[in-house]
Amino acid sequence: MTRPQPYKWFFETTTAFEGHMHAIARTLVETQTKFQHVEILQTAAYGKTLVLDGRIQSSQGDEFIYHEALVHPGMLATDGAPRSALVIGGGEGATLREILRYPSVTRAVMVDIDGEVVELCKTHLPEMHRGAFDDPRTEVRHEDARAYLEKSTERFDFITVDLVEPLEEGPACMLFTREFYTLVRDRLTPGGAMSMQAGMTKLGELSFFTSIHRTLRDVFPLVAGYQSFVSCFGTPWGFIVASKKIDPNRQDARAVDALIADRIKGSLEYWDGATHQHAFGLPKFIRKAIATQTRVVTDANPLIVT
Amino acid sequence: MTRPQPYKWFFETTTAFEGHMHAIARTLVETQTKFQHVEILQTAAYGKTLVLDGRIQSSQGDEFIYHEALVHPGMLATDGAPRSALVIGGGEGATLREILRYPSVTRAVMVDIDGEVVELCKTHLPEMHRGAFDDPRTEVRHEDARAYLEKSTERFDFITVDLVEPLEEGPACMLFTREFYTLVRDRLTPGGAMSMQAGMTKLGELSFFTSIHRTLRDVFPLVAGYQSFVSCFGTPWGFIVASKKIDPNRQDARAVDALIADRIKGSLEYWDGATHQHAFGLPKFIRKAIATQTRVVTDANPLIVT
Amino acid sequence: MTRPQPYKWFFETTTAFEGHMHAIARTLVETQTKFQHVEILQTAAYGKTLVLDGRIQSSQGDEFIYHEALVHPGMLATDGAPRSALVIGGGEGATLREILRYPSVTRAVMVDIDGEVVELCKTHLPEMHRGAFDDPRTEVRHEDARAYLEKSTERFDFITVDLVEPLEEGPACMLFTREFYTLVRDRLTPGGAMSMQAGMTKLGELSFFTSIHRTLRDVFPLVAGYQSFVSCFGTPWGFIVASKKIDPNRQDARAVDALIADRIKGSLEYWDGATHQHAFGLPKFIRKAIATQTRVVTDANPLIVT
Amino acid sequence: MTRPQPYKWFFETTTAFEGHMHAIARTLVETQTKFQHVEILQTAAYGKTLVLDGRIQSSQGDEFIYHEALVHPGMLATDGAPRSALVIGGGEGATLREILRYPSVTRAVMVDIDGEVVELCKTHLPEMHRGAFDDPRTEVRHEDARAYLEKSTERFDFITVDLVEPLEEGPACMLFTREFYTLVRDRLTPGGAMSMQAGMTKLGELSFFTSIHRTLRDVFPLVAGYQSFVSCFGTPWGFIVASKKIDPNRQDARAVDALIADRIKGSLEYWDGATHQHAFGLPKFIRKAIATQTRVVTDANPLIVT
Repeated sequence: MTRPQPYKWFFETTTAFEGHMHAIARTLVETQTKFQHVEILQTAAYGKTLVLDGRIQSSQGDEFIYHEALVHPGMLATDGAPRSALVIGGGEGATLREILRYPSVTRAVMVDIDGEVVELCKTHLPEMHRGAFDDPRTEVRHEDARAYLEKSTERFDFITVDLVEPLEEGPACMLFTREFYTLVRDRLTPGGAMSMQAGMTKLGELSFFTSIHRTLRDVFPLVAGYQSFVSCFGTPWGFIVASKKIDPNRQDARAVDALIADRIKGSLEYWDGATHQHAFGLPKFIRKAIATQTRVVTDANPLIVT
Repeated sequence: MTRPQPYKWFFETTTAFEGHMHAIARTLVETQTKFQHVEILQTAAYGKTLVLDGRIQSSQGDEFIYHEALVHPGMLATDGAPRSALVIGGGEGATLREILRYPSVTRAVMVDIDGEVVELCKTHLPEMHRGAFDDPRTEVRHEDARAYLEKSTERFDFITVDLVEPLEEGPACMLFTREFYTLVRDRLTPGGAMSMQAGMTKLGELSFFTSIHRTLRDVFPLVAGYQSFVSCFGTPWGFIVASKKIDPNRQDARAVDALIADRIKGSLEYWDGATHQHAFGLPKFIRKAIATQTRVVTDANPLIVT
Repeated sequence: MTRPQPYKWFFETTTAFEGHMHAIARTLVETQTKFQHVEILQTAAYGKTLVLDGRIQSSQGDEFIYHEALVHPGMLATDGAPRSALVIGGGEGATLREILRYPSVTRAVMVDIDGEVVELCKTHLPEMHRGAFDDPRTEVRHEDARAYLEKSTERFDFITVDLVEPLEEGPACMLFTREFYTLVRDRLTPGGAMSMQAGMTKLGELSFFTSIHRTLRDVFPLVAGYQSFVSCFGTPWGFIVASKKIDPNRQDARAVDALIADRIKGSLEYWDGATHQHAFGLPKFIRKAIATQTRVVTDANPLIVT
Repeated sequence: MTRPQPYKWFFETTTAFEGHMHAIARTLVETQTKFQHVEILQTAAYGKTLVLDGRIQSSQGDEFIYHEALVHPGMLATDGAPRSALVIGGGEGATLREILRYPSVTRAVMVDIDGEVVELCKTHLPEMHRGAFDDPRTEVRHEDARAYLEKSTERFDFITVDLVEPLEEGPACMLFTREFYTLVRDRLTPGGAMSMQAGMTKLGELSFFTSIHRTLRDVFPLVAGYQSFVSCFGTPWGFIVASKKIDPNRQDARAVDALIADRIKGSLEYWDGATHQHAFGLPKFIRKAIATQTRVVTDANPLIVT
């Protein structure tokens, strides 16, 4: 049998004028939950790919880049080995999986409002969670993360915000504001650190990343932006660590390698000292964009990605 | 008047299953030279964009990233301020432009086999060359670069190879082999350095980059791969510096900043010490791919990108 | 909420250089049967759309055109009101549905080799079959149609061949040959007629249609090609009636309207006398292509659509 | 050399959810005139293709269908062989070419407001005009057609309106109204006929065609809609003849063939008696849409295609 041309394509546009395209080999899951439209597509190039409201979240082929980049810089920026961690969002369970690599961790809470997405990931994406949901240290809750943080007094050594960007005015907006980050800070232990995904860092598309960076600087003493190229997104992606004591920008490659050896069981595929240097070494035009951004995102003036 | 949907699109595929797409606002130039198919497209997102044989070479919007990344790491890796430079390929004149920023340079030769492309760029891309072709230090030649190097005995402090990848078996193949790099090395002064563009560095598409890296290690004492995300390509792009005395991997951010201040007139938009750290800090999986690549590219066994 | 751009597209190419594209609103079913890849897509423009091996078969929005065009010209070309009918293929059940509109019909057999497709259509495409599978006159069999005809001696007043084109060498090829059409002819009653879908009739893509037309002329005394534009295909589609006694080309609009009034219960949406005139009035260049085609398709020299 | 994948595509969408796509082999001309954006693209499937404001007008490969369909039904619906003709629009010169096939014609005026488009077609599309502009019977004027008709008192046996659809509110709107058609009628001789292109006739996209049909019925005693599938449009296209004495719907195939033999020099590729039958035999759902359309387009309430 001759191999046919791919006939179904997924287009992820950044503007009306540019985009990245994937051949769809097969649609494994497509449904609408109470909160969002969910697809698990088999893309020809990257294998199983989670898509929420039309935006790629992660793919089997390169999720190690995204999830290692999201978790480890923050987990290595806590003052002492982290014992407790909170994941806000993180439906696939891969963020949890990376946290559970730390034997020091005794408690890992994940709060994702959309229980249906989590169930679909449990069933269809075992390659991503790899049993993380069954770890005895794990607690999964399905509720609004802000309400959870407001009512709880528990403190964590590490909190990571692994959320989709706010594509429209709605509850997600309230998880990208100075008030929310203040709440996160107050739920961190004195040596704690948070990390988050913070949007694209490609030329001309930096306003989300830089506004969040600016906003966090109002709340945390130490804020360090970094980026990693996520292949299936077709663009470098921004992340930020905000911490109380340890500044990732002052950790050199050797120190990072030593911390990894010390804190993590097994070996990583993406992150190490040189990768740290790569990711935190923001190119000149990105640093300039950060330096000139003045916008602080607040509950009264939230950020919506259009 | 309502703004219409873009109706012409340029698709740059990396495999049959993935690609990057650009809305074409207008075709400014389209012609066939003796050597290749040439287009200068006005893309909606990046302005004027040079396309050779269907592959994007550079765009007005982000060419500063590509050209600064190609030139400066090598020009900063010469033993002493470079006085002479040779560009192999480099049709737009922007590579030349970056070289001419160094007041120490008294002679800059560009050998591009396709005089028609150079003429088109002179006429239509003044934003890129910015007068570089008219600089009295410049000499432009249209001939086969390998033949030129073979017959000449002149030595340069810096040589940069700014060529399209060999998309088919042909003369370009002979500019990506151990024999050719040996010739380049022999035309460098004792403290000289070469740089080159070396293909994509995205996950799963690393074989060109790593094979060239491996091949150069047979020829040069010091070989340092690095990468920069080029927005209009939709992928990070690999470059390599191969030098005789100075190792870019041993230049820290401060040293790079000092060299830039010392050697370059005016300020750069992309490259500086932190960018150097970013670019040379190759992520773990790329270093692993380099370490395990065994292929040496030779005249007898050339590399063809498919 | 702002309406997002469609991000998943289905491309149906006729050549490597031209195609028709549909935004996919949702994938309702996607699976692989023993025989073919099956999708039921919700297209934004046409509603539920059945796709087999990457080729659109029919859509909710315009299937009345395809199925009325396939069935009625043949059912109106039998000598006397048809009493029995055989559908070869016809998975959706809509071909059957059109046949069952004739109160004269007491027996309607459908032989579709792929029982899984039929089950999926029963469940997911009630808009198409509208209960045809439950009609007491209906008998559905899942076996090879040629083997079925070879072993049976039953004769039908009408036989229709509603098959996908043979995209590769395989059993389907054997249902588009002179030998197979001879078998069909022998299973028709003396006044019987057959009809079939016979590929595109757009300019430059006529070879399938004309070869089948030429082949049928070796077998049947009367052969009449016709066409209908099927919107979701983006091309006019060819059909052929081959009959023993009645020539559709000699039925004028008034006669067709009278036959419809006489034989069919309820009213049709697409077919009537004027539509008959439209469909059988093949444009000059199509008639010329038919007249000059010499190829006869045989078991030994089958036809494969590439 | 391996043949590369086509990398530039032209998308012609009918809605936001459906479209037809063409690989672009080469852009031959692209410019902006005083009135519109003009491209002559070499499409891989159809050769040279004229595109105005992003909409395909005609292609080398199938323009015979469009231009024969536009001209001959009207030229065969004049009372007696036509002696004079007026083309409104018709930039390529192919409409003129078809008119000049009639030896009875002694005067053919073409009024196209955009002289730059006409010049480009003269130079780049000789395959279309085939010398029609140099025929001594031809007079070409570049001015507003409505103003021309208002100030002139000349009468023509045949007038054809070969205009782009009104894509925005502007002067073109005023060429698709009851007032304008009244003017056209008054400039026809007592046995004269007009024809026009009248938009798509695909299912669900019939409102332009049916509104114009309805409007013409307010002005002319005889109005006959018809359609032809134009391959490069990917959709059947509607035309209308409005005449004073002869009704095309009452011309049977034999009569049309006799008229062609009588009036036209040489032979046609698309149009003859059977094609007439095909084109005027509108399918049932189109006739129903015509019958139920109530909108009359007027200067005060013009039609804009969106």
